[in-house]
Amino acid sequence: MSGMAKTPKPPYYAVIFASQRTEGDRGYEKMAEKMVELASKQTGFLGVESARDNELGITVSYWDSLDSIKNWKENSVHKVAQERGKQEWYKNFSLRVCKVERDNFYEI
Amino acid sequence: MSGMAKTPKPPYYAVIFASQRTEGDRGYEKMAEKMVELASKQTGFLGVESARDNELGITVSYWDSLDSIKNWKENSVHKVAQERGKQEWYKNFSLRVCKVERDNFYEI
Repeated sequence: MSGMAKTPKPPYYAVIFASQRTEGDRGYEKMAEKMVELASKQTGFLGVESARDNELGITVSYWDSLDSIKNWKENSVHKVAQERGKQEWYKNFSLRVCKVERDNFYEI
Repeated sequence: MSGMAKTPKPPYYAVIFASQRTEGDRGYEKMAEKMVELASKQTGFLGVESARDNELGITVSYWDSLDSIKNWKENSVHKVAQERGKQEWYKNFSLRVCKVERDNFYEI
């Protein structure tokens, strides 16, 4: 769950997940780490980037296809986490599924 | 520069900007605020979401078209900020231009 994602040449897909947390951890950090670990083992997973401050959290995961995104969405362990997210962890969230058309990397 | 973006029905476009900062502020926060203010006045701007922690910053801006993104990229004040970004503020960054194909919002 650290740093910038190294993705292949476009096109590929991104899921932008923005969220505002409820108060307190409630097992969130542990589950978030577990979900990144599990996602990274899924077919078609290309990388993930995540940042959170007091205002907002943004996690962007990258995938090779819409089918891979669908499979991850329907993963049974992930589904349990999604439900706890709605019940316990998030005040609001949004999910956007995007096709990455071009990208540009800069390193010193 | 706060909270979640309210965007219209897809399709629309997203620019995902991920970055790792150099040490110290160096005028960064002030310029970041100014850029959000300026971007929000551009034609075709739909919203912005931003989060930063010790590891990574992610800013996603939303736009109605690729032309609007191009115009913002070429805005002269923004170009000065882009140059300072490369020279002073960022160790690494990536930019991804995406077409948002579908989205989903959840609020308690």
